[in-house]
Amino acid sequence: MKDLKRKHSIPGKIYVIGTGPGSVEHITPYARKAITHSDTIVGYGTYMELISGLLDKKEVFSTGMTREIERCRKAVEIAGTGKTVAVISGGDPGIYAMAGLVLELCKEAGIDAPVVDLEIIPGISALNACAARLGAPLMHDFASISLSDRLTPWERIEKRLDASASADFVIVLYNPKSKGRTAHIERAREIILKYRTPETPVGIVRGAMRENERIVITDLSDMLRHQIDMQTTVIIGNSSTYRWKDFIVTPRGYERKLGSDGRDG
Amino acid sequence: MKDLKRKHSIPGKIYVIGTGPGSVEHITPYARKAITHSDTIVGYGTYMELISGLLDKKEVFSTGMTREIERCRKAVEIAGTGKTVAVISGGDPGIYAMAGLVLELCKEAGIDAPVVDLEIIPGISALNACAARLGAPLMHDFASISLSDRLTPWERIEKRLDASASADFVIVLYNPKSKGRTAHIERAREIILKYRTPETPVGIVRGAMRENERIVITDLSDMLRHQIDMQTTVIIGNSSTYRWKDFIVTPRGYERKLGSDGRDG
Repeated sequence: MKDLKRKHSIPGKIYVIGTGPGSVEHITPYARKAITHSDTIVGYGTYMELISGLLDKKEVFSTGMTREIERCRKAVEIAGTGKTVAVISGGDPGIYAMAGLVLELCKEAGIDAPVVDLEIIPGISALNACAARLGAPLMHDFASISLSDRLTPWERIEKRLDASASADFVIVLYNPKSKGRTAHIERAREIILKYRTPETPVGIVRGAMRENERIVITDLSDMLRHQIDMQTTVIIGNSSTYRWKDFIVTPRGYERKLGSDGRDG
Repeated sequence: MKDLKRKHSIPGKIYVIGTGPGSVEHITPYARKAITHSDTIVGYGTYMELISGLLDKKEVFSTGMTREIERCRKAVEIAGTGKTVAVISGGDPGIYAMAGLVLELCKEAGIDAPVVDLEIIPGISALNACAARLGAPLMHDFASISLSDRLTPWERIEKRLDASASADFVIVLYNPKSKGRTAHIERAREIILKYRTPETPVGIVRGAMRENERIVITDLSDMLRHQIDMQTTVIIGNSSTYRWKDFIVTPRGYERKLGSDGRDG
């Protein structure tokens, strides 16, 4: 870091790369190419295992899940020595993930080059993957809310739950429950039930598109009977969302016009 | 369609496939494999051209942009004859796109098989791609709102703008403006300005990750001076979002703790 601060620029390059839901099958060719072009790969153990086939002959810096700040600092530091560094993020680094942290740490390092050579490469996020596995819940406006109050006051989270429920957004819940926080998902459900019926469809997805995937389609009334943890994403329908066979579908609009001429109504 | 109704099942299979921002570089290997395995490919002209390299020896059914219902009906009909059909969607079919329409048309066709052989394959949506090109605007809770009132009453859209602005969501605007609707984006900005300062960062992205990409980083005060149309996605920061060099960054939380021990605060 000292070196970086003295130089006030990054001679190297940082890629922040999304590897999607898990297996290499869901990593875009563009992301794969960026990994191949990098000298050093920085990431969390589990995600690194999933892409281990791409890491041959690479310098690798891997740490446990909670040490993300340490990993990203390391990436900025290594880029400061002129190397190309890939920071690996599961899902999409742009959605509640590494992109912001890397940028915050670049800023903290006092880089004053007018252009920082940093590229965010998007991936399939939990939101995209879970929606796909449930059918079509996100055909209309939606709000994405993390129930983790580690860095956000709980009152603000409650306000967002209330606002999004009252305005009939489909609601995507990230980090719905951890061992230390079991009441948040209960409270979220209570708030949403002020505005929606108990029959409102709810999808609960864990490990979307991975081998251990688990999909539950239920409703607001019954959702708490199912296992929910930090690896789970919960999607709650709007007032028009319905269940059909194994799917949850949110219609594209409120005035349903499936015109017979093949044109949109 | 008659055939389908008589049989009440789909003997074939439907894939609804997201091809991401445009070029084949951003299509996942999994999506590519599904295209390869399909007998018939159904899609909108422009997206089909972008993946033309994958369409060799395929039966292709392609129509103009507004004829999406016709295309999806055709897909359901062809699957009814026992074929495997790929419905191609730009971006992610699960976000304001084809997934819901295909499911609605399957339902309309009266399929009564308990399991419909239909798979949604997610792609990089405009939301993911635009966020990546802007830096890290979606590090915290966000709301996605389409400003098109073609199928949704405008009052409902205004209510959502107000609710999401008041609860400090980052706001992603799809379909911000068309030739017939130029006032919606102005009204959206007015509503958001009730709750946020004129200096709130705004990102305007057109053709993200394509050759003709255009990225503007501006603020609520100046945003209307820039070109905005139906191909544009607009992302408006929350109260903590800031500009740093070429980027927009939303901090991960409201209590900023970049702990020196490498652990999250």
